[in-house]
Amino acid sequence: MTIRDLSDSGFEAPPGWRGKLHEVIFGWETRGGRLFDIGLILAILLSVLAVMLESIGEFRDAYGEAIYYAEWIFTVLFTIEYGLRLSSVERPGKYATSFFGIIDLLAILPTYLSIFFPGAQYLLVIRLLRILRVFRVLKLAKYVASANVILAALKASAHKIAVFMATVLILVTIVGSLIYFVEGAENGFTSIPRSIYWAIVTVTTVGYGDISPQSILGQLLASLVMLMGYAIIAVPTGIVTVELARLRTEQVADCQRCGSPEHDSDARFCKRCGERLPATL
Amino acid sequence: MTIRDLSDSGFEAPPGWRGKLHEVIFGWETRGGRLFDIGLILAILLSVLAVMLESIGEFRDAYGEAIYYAEWIFTVLFTIEYGLRLSSVERPGKYATSFFGIIDLLAILPTYLSIFFPGAQYLLVIRLLRILRVFRVLKLAKYVASANVILAALKASAHKIAVFMATVLILVTIVGSLIYFVEGAENGFTSIPRSIYWAIVTVTTVGYGDISPQSILGQLLASLVMLMGYAIIAVPTGIVTVELARLRTEQVADCQRCGSPEHDSDARFCKRCGERLPATL
Amino acid sequence: MTIRDLSDSGFEAPPGWRGKLHEVIFGWETRGGRLFDIGLILAILLSVLAVMLESIGEFRDAYGEAIYYAEWIFTVLFTIEYGLRLSSVERPGKYATSFFGIIDLLAILPTYLSIFFPGAQYLLVIRLLRILRVFRVLKLAKYVASANVILAALKASAHKIAVFMATVLILVTIVGSLIYFVEGAENGFTSIPRSIYWAIVTVTTVGYGDISPQSILGQLLASLVMLMGYAIIAVPTGIVTVELARLRTEQVADCQRCGSPEHDSDARFCKRCGERLPATL
Amino acid sequence: MTIRDLSDSGFEAPPGWRGKLHEVIFGWETRGGRLFDIGLILAILLSVLAVMLESIGEFRDAYGEAIYYAEWIFTVLFTIEYGLRLSSVERPGKYATSFFGIIDLLAILPTYLSIFFPGAQYLLVIRLLRILRVFRVLKLAKYVASANVILAALKASAHKIAVFMATVLILVTIVGSLIYFVEGAENGFTSIPRSIYWAIVTVTTVGYGDISPQSILGQLLASLVMLMGYAIIAVPTGIVTVELARLRTEQVADCQRCGSPEHDSDARFCKRCGERLPATL
Repeated sequence: MTIRDLSDSGFEAPPGWRGKLHEVIFGWETRGGRLFDIGLILAILLSVLAVMLESIGEFRDAYGEAIYYAEWIFTVLFTIEYGLRLSSVERPGKYATSFFGIIDLLAILPTYLSIFFPGAQYLLVIRLLRILRVFRVLKLAKYVASANVILAALKASAHKIAVFMATVLILVTIVGSLIYFVEGAENGFTSIPRSIYWAIVTVTTVGYGDISPQSILGQLLASLVMLMGYAIIAVPTGIVTVELARLRTEQVADCQRCGSPEHDSDARFCKRCGERLPATL
Repeated sequence: MTIRDLSDSGFEAPPGWRGKLHEVIFGWETRGGRLFDIGLILAILLSVLAVMLESIGEFRDAYGEAIYYAEWIFTVLFTIEYGLRLSSVERPGKYATSFFGIIDLLAILPTYLSIFFPGAQYLLVIRLLRILRVFRVLKLAKYVASANVILAALKASAHKIAVFMATVLILVTIVGSLIYFVEGAENGFTSIPRSIYWAIVTVTTVGYGDISPQSILGQLLASLVMLMGYAIIAVPTGIVTVELARLRTEQVADCQRCGSPEHDSDARFCKRCGERLPATL
Repeated sequence: MTIRDLSDSGFEAPPGWRGKLHEVIFGWETRGGRLFDIGLILAILLSVLAVMLESIGEFRDAYGEAIYYAEWIFTVLFTIEYGLRLSSVERPGKYATSFFGIIDLLAILPTYLSIFFPGAQYLLVIRLLRILRVFRVLKLAKYVASANVILAALKASAHKIAVFMATVLILVTIVGSLIYFVEGAENGFTSIPRSIYWAIVTVTTVGYGDISPQSILGQLLASLVMLMGYAIIAVPTGIVTVELARLRTEQVADCQRCGSPEHDSDARFCKRCGERLPATL
Repeated sequence: MTIRDLSDSGFEAPPGWRGKLHEVIFGWETRGGRLFDIGLILAILLSVLAVMLESIGEFRDAYGEAIYYAEWIFTVLFTIEYGLRLSSVERPGKYATSFFGIIDLLAILPTYLSIFFPGAQYLLVIRLLRILRVFRVLKLAKYVASANVILAALKASAHKIAVFMATVLILVTIVGSLIYFVEGAENGFTSIPRSIYWAIVTVTTVGYGDISPQSILGQLLASLVMLMGYAIIAVPTGIVTVELARLRTEQVADCQRCGSPEHDSDARFCKRCGERLPATL
């Protein structure tokens, strides 16, 4: 999965006026396409800002009505935009089930849901994910390349990180049950799920302190868990570092003419055929 | 130690009906063996869920009796299974002292203990460790390989991590005594063991805040410990990263035909004899 | 950007007495220049100490007036010094807009501002940045080299770290809104901005505990965020480690005679021409 | 600095009965020497345990007198031992100023000081440092080698870590002053030193929560500091990892016959002369 896979550039333009519309809404080569994208980003940021301000008591009391109308105006605009997107691609179903197609839908639903469930409008900050399109608009090639490297490293580490997470989950369940047995409800460990929550708070070194062991045995167990967490936190860091290092080496390594793969990480020209190597990130 | 060493696949099947039983209980090649394994995992997950629900006050009040019977039914089933496992291997003693043999026993004891010590049943979450068998059932080869790499890296780092842990233990003991001397019982540091607990909470950057220094000298000492913890946390991460990097290099490196060990990490063919190198994880 | 770029050694000396002055204020080759620099560092440290002591209630009550006069004396001295710096360079405008030129101005402004805004004098600890000049005075070449390596690694990682930070910011905004929706004002999550603050406190594993989730759903969400933070914290560490490793390799790698770039990290002589390689850090 | 440098094996034995004594006290080749060392370690552990127990209120009330006498007996024994060590080396002054010589003295002083300053006896946990001798006694060669690798990596990183720590110190001073200016005494930030303590607690991700920002501006500043701490914590980890990786590479790399330094990290034989390479840690 790369940032490119996340983009919505893979849809075919239909002929006629729908093709023109496609160029503006999905494209960024024309002046209209760029202006549309920039306007869209501004609208997203403003609507998210509006929701944030509404959540602050004083603002809600003072400007509640204005914010309420602003939210509805933005939502109607985004709904129209969603309809135009659907109508300006050859296969609407493919767009609707793509990454950004789903995000676009999720970004307008909360306001409609808030009619039946007050408070649901706070969920529309998911609109922020639409800003990932900004990478394309602003031609931030270097940043897209960097993001792809990070994504590739995480993807290559996925198996190891899954095993690691499964181990951590089994560990915190057992530790949580032990501490529940040792400390009990009178010290704040009112149930095993709550004790597992404490174990996660401890192993990840967050340590809120809303629940903490009071008995000597409990503090001993907690100390063991913390020291174990010390060695444990080294594992994901090591996994990701190794993948990032490998990606950096590989990037420079392959010559695009002769395919020679044995270049050092500081090489600028292929040592076999002299071809300039592709630029590193 | 690899995941394979942790498995229970190394036991010889006895002849006759006990061999058939062995195939179902220990094997996973036959349809019966796979069904048995899947049923076992479901039973483990359900019994752990039952224990968790029982620990929540409202659930215990409402469904306490049902959960109580469920726990006993699961325990009796697991006891029968343990007996069948013992009787379906050539040498029961070898199974009983193997990794999973001990876990299997520990997984049924807590319920029996709860007759004499109420609350002991919460310890049966140790049953979760039996789920490690899931790796074998679901043929998660990639995950097993990943787990083996992480285990190998931790094993290769064992000496260094032991030295590191010993140093941290001496350090937190000395720091704990100093802070007990500086702050004293009136600021919550009621004894040296409790002050050592505080030092571990601080060095590992967990920081509950249930005990924290109040005097200027104590806060100065705490600041030094925290900054030291900054450099200290780098050590286990560095150790594990280096081992993981070495393992990745070695994995690709050895040619299985000529044994040539000098391949770059991005090589796909042996540069000596042209043999395809074993696939990397 | 290197420490050298941050220095103020690039300014031309004017002729006559202003050149003499330049040698003392900007230079460090003459005895006068070194004495001036050492005196300046002492004055900076003393003035920062004075501000710190003033902030402590008991000190302010006992020595408030003395500290007040000391601050003004230091500020007048630094103002005179700033004037002399301006008058002893060929192009004052270039100095005034250089890194240290701006810091020098910011270092005297707070005291003057404190006439109109009491308390502004606490901002003059920014004077500490002027101490970076100490590197030059004490000829701490090894430390400057080390600082340059760290700066270079951070600079080379800048794109990746920017992408990482942007992702974290979008993530904490969405997580903050979700937890605000789940927990609400009655559990301390009084607004989305405050909930985003909680999300940052959690993802970075700081975990003050001033706000923490109370509901089961909130604790489940928090657990997911903490475990995610586990994998997330591995990313910047991996990025910086890879850059530091590459810099170390490159440093040794380039031969200064033939420019051969393929030396191993433990090489002391160029394997092509036998030239001694530049010393590593 | 290696563990060997920290040992006390470098002292010359005097002739006569003092030489015999030297063999027992400083040596570990004879049976008497080994027994003496083991007895010493037991005595140290017991005396530290006594001090810990004394610090717990209930124990002090119940067995205070017994612990008091035990402490004095141990101290008198260690004082005699210190005298014997002084008298059984050729140059007592050299021993008295060596690493373990100073530790040996510091390990007996607190009990004597406790006559004048009650509570000083808690400082005698410094005796634990004497246990580092255990490495020698138990012939834990692998652990000593591991400890030397970690020490060497930290030593090679010393310049970079010093620069890093200086930067962090300047940073937390400026951040502490800013938050003092923003939050002020009414929100718990009663002085700049206390605010710097908060900044250290935050940047190191410890996060006690004993002091935390209350105003929106303060929380914004804290958020920035936490996110910065995210990138900052990557630096020491990266530094130490790179040094550990280099040491591992170098260790395998040098052939002891021909001195060829270009072996890969997985090589077992020198590729120039076929000599077996020294075993890796």
